[in-house]
Amino acid sequence: MANQEDKFKKVISHAKEYGYVFQSSEIYDGLSAVYDYAQNGAELKNNIKQYWWKAMVQLHDNIVGIDSAIFMHPTVWKASGHVDAFNDPLIDNKDSKKRYRADVLIEDYCAKLENKINKEVTKAAKRFGEAFNKQEFVTTNPRVLGYQEKIDTILSRMGKSLENEDLADVKSLIEELDIVCPVSGSKNWTDVKQFNLMFGTKLGASADSAMDLYLRPETAQGIFVNFLNVQKTGRMKIPFGIAQIGKAFRNEIVARQFIFRQREFEQMEMQFFVRPGTQKEWYEAWKQNRIKWHLSLGIGEDNYRFHDHDKLAHYADAAADIEFKFPFGFKELEGIHSRTDFDLSSHEKHSGKKLQYFDHEINESYVPYVVETSIGLDRMFLAVFSNSLIEEELENGSTRTVLKLPAVLAPTKAAILPLVKKDGLPDVAKEIIEDLKWDFKVIYDEKDAVGRRYRRQDANGTPFCITVDHQTLEDKTVTIRHRDTMEQKRVAIADLKSIINAEVSMKEWLKKI
Amino acid sequence: MANQEDKFKKVISHAKEYGYVFQSSEIYDGLSAVYDYAQNGAELKNNIKQYWWKAMVQLHDNIVGIDSAIFMHPTVWKASGHVDAFNDPLIDNKDSKKRYRADVLIEDYCAKLENKINKEVTKAAKRFGEAFNKQEFVTTNPRVLGYQEKIDTILSRMGKSLENEDLADVKSLIEELDIVCPVSGSKNWTDVKQFNLMFGTKLGASADSAMDLYLRPETAQGIFVNFLNVQKTGRMKIPFGIAQIGKAFRNEIVARQFIFRQREFEQMEMQFFVRPGTQKEWYEAWKQNRIKWHLSLGIGEDNYRFHDHDKLAHYADAAADIEFKFPFGFKELEGIHSRTDFDLSSHEKHSGKKLQYFDHEINESYVPYVVETSIGLDRMFLAVFSNSLIEEELENGSTRTVLKLPAVLAPTKAAILPLVKKDGLPDVAKEIIEDLKWDFKVIYDEKDAVGRRYRRQDANGTPFCITVDHQTLEDKTVTIRHRDTMEQKRVAIADLKSIINAEVSMKEWLKKI
Repeated sequence: MANQEDKFKKVISHAKEYGYVFQSSEIYDGLSAVYDYAQNGAELKNNIKQYWWKAMVQLHDNIVGIDSAIFMHPTVWKASGHVDAFNDPLIDNKDSKKRYRADVLIEDYCAKLENKINKEVTKAAKRFGEAFNKQEFVTTNPRVLGYQEKIDTILSRMGKSLENEDLADVKSLIEELDIVCPVSGSKNWTDVKQFNLMFGTKLGASADSAMDLYLRPETAQGIFVNFLNVQKTGRMKIPFGIAQIGKAFRNEIVARQFIFRQREFEQMEMQFFVRPGTQKEWYEAWKQNRIKWHLSLGIGEDNYRFHDHDKLAHYADAAADIEFKFPFGFKELEGIHSRTDFDLSSHEKHSGKKLQYFDHEINESYVPYVVETSIGLDRMFLAVFSNSLIEEELENGSTRTVLKLPAVLAPTKAAILPLVKKDGLPDVAKEIIEDLKWDFKVIYDEKDAVGRRYRRQDANGTPFCITVDHQTLEDKTVTIRHRDTMEQKRVAIADLKSIINAEVSMKEWLKKI
Repeated sequence: MANQEDKFKKVISHAKEYGYVFQSSEIYDGLSAVYDYAQNGAELKNNIKQYWWKAMVQLHDNIVGIDSAIFMHPTVWKASGHVDAFNDPLIDNKDSKKRYRADVLIEDYCAKLENKINKEVTKAAKRFGEAFNKQEFVTTNPRVLGYQEKIDTILSRMGKSLENEDLADVKSLIEELDIVCPVSGSKNWTDVKQFNLMFGTKLGASADSAMDLYLRPETAQGIFVNFLNVQKTGRMKIPFGIAQIGKAFRNEIVARQFIFRQREFEQMEMQFFVRPGTQKEWYEAWKQNRIKWHLSLGIGEDNYRFHDHDKLAHYADAAADIEFKFPFGFKELEGIHSRTDFDLSSHEKHSGKKLQYFDHEINESYVPYVVETSIGLDRMFLAVFSNSLIEEELENGSTRTVLKLPAVLAPTKAAILPLVKKDGLPDVAKEIIEDLKWDFKVIYDEKDAVGRRYRRQDANGTPFCITVDHQTLEDKTVTIRHRDTMEQKRVAIADLKSIINAEVSMKEWLKKI
């Protein structure tokens, strides 16, 4: 655990030091749970967007992409259920004036019981040595069983109370468990209240016409309200999909874990419209398609797992997460949801407009069913970035920090380095840049010894270093060094473009899906 | 004028009909001055973004790009001057309860005087026939001179009053001119008040820690507050630039002209940091560089002009617009501003952090001067789109509607059309798509006669139509038709990729800059 925390701290500091992610408004001491993508981060983020967009839109002739506004008509959020149900149960401590998510307070309490179980296990493991059978111990030891039963009782009661909107019982639970405010230490709690997570603002200046708007909490609704316009003007036939990348906003009370849970974040969503009754097939198909997309990046099969939802949201008839092994454990990276006709039907009701599709094959009109794939772009960024950051022990005993980003996503594809700052080597290096820059993002670096420059590019995530030396002047060859293997080869300048292209071209990577 | 209006209406309806731009939340009767980019619009917009990003970031080794959040610390907007000075002067009519921009009311009044002048000119032109000299007439005719003098007096007084924040005088002017509310027809006006154009929201749920935030009204400040972090982690040396594409929000009272002036819009900005004293050179250099970027798209030199500002914003020591000939006349498309050290110095003051650069060449620390290039992405979209939409009379007397988008920006690069829906032609067409789709966005279309499909793709803006016919089965050739010339050539399937690439590749277009 300490190791995980260390690793995560390294990820965050490396992200800053190498120009990937800065805290927002840092010179003003930052803005909580909001981050800026810096010069390398912006490129990595753009590359992830393109990798997704090309895979989803360009390669599927039945998927198109749109870009709808963050501002939408307020009734959209009434229809989607966000006005009424997009809430967190909050509770204030009257002494510290601090506000908490009531469910998180209770979950934190259970986590402490979980810790006690872990301690019992560790203790017993020490005592019994090799004879220790963990499975047997946790299913028979009375103390462990007691803790486990308590956890189960608490969580099940909380789940039921939240589902039934019985907030008084959630408060009673907190009181019965003697949960205290971490700041004041007191049990002087207010009632539990629902707090809506949407950010509000006002459109227009006129007193009589000002309109309460929300910043969209998800991009999906921008697709649903445009469904019929896209279908008609794009002459789409079911099954077809509409994809979108864009910002969404949630006024999270507990926002933490770096860019994993931000108040302003970006989603890459695709809504796939299908004939009712076929949604289960498509749901399975998209689960498979999406995991293949992830695996194509070569970040390691063991880092992903499916988590099928037992408890379904009100709009879904099936749902699964693709979870990724973040530095703080397996967490949701992408969701695949069979959303039924909930959204379109609800928009029909609230707008009074028909949102139906006439299916020529079966001669029937219907409201399509929807299968959604929804990935957090910032989470995808964190997944790729954190997994790529490696401290490697070298044969000579030294260590190097290397950011083994998939080459297709790396911000800079190659660094061009003159071995020394004289004898015309910088000029040759710059000529190479002039030639390569039309195809790839490349940079020039002449400062420090070449070994140090290699290390800098390793930490930067640059897949190739190309060094211009004195032999270059004679035979127009350079050395090209691979970031991951550190192998160097002598190659002709004329071959550089095709060598780099073979390893960074989006086309080649997408073919692995 | 009527012609211009007609043209503009056609632009708007074509944008909807062919899946470029939809009104936001249309099924809920829309949201004023907010638009969604549809399936073709999203691609065109993405292509414009990439064309700009590659030209600015990838091709300049001293420019990097970032992606900062929309949410920023509120003090940022105090430092930038937006909290105090980003206002519109508003006035309410007490009878209709409608709110207006006071300056627009006055400008509309002057526009009516302008119309009177135009009428005099038309009348005189008719009367004098060929002998009419417009220049002489408007500088000598007493009635025209009277109108002109009145306009000049009004605008000059309004300008002064606004500059001196003398809002009482702005109200007096409205009263003296007997300006009535267009809705109620009454002169029952309130006082003129300043109204801030930033959208506000609240961050955090806790009563004691909720923070008033603004949605950023410009992306530039995201660059300024990150200036030092980018410079240090990116090891940048002055002169260098930081580029950014992103959303900004302004609560415009008078938002109109389709996507030209929206409440939610997108900017492409670059801030170039230079040594104090060199800003004039860089300002001139960027004016030239940016106009070249525009001209590289081949939309016609006559459509652009520079407009140098006489009146400078408080932060600028030089400023010019690149104006474009929109369907409603020449209007600002891009601004190039020499912003001095205003922003960085102000952030130094408000944050208490040093934002200085140590210049090794002259052994001196200073706050850099900044030259900004700032283009409205939605305006760029409208410029390209409106200029490309053409009704063309053909030799046979019929007309065709064609969207002559620069091929590099076109959403779909080629449509693959089987001549008939049988004899295996669709299969061959789909094989071609399987091959091309890795490199280009292509679509398949088998519906209707091929002539009609050509027209559809013309109106869609697709540069190439590739038709598979019976000869294809024999010799593996197809016809390729160019959108603009309508010329058709027989070519080998094997050559398609290179033929298309030569005309749509971003690299080739960028080389024209």
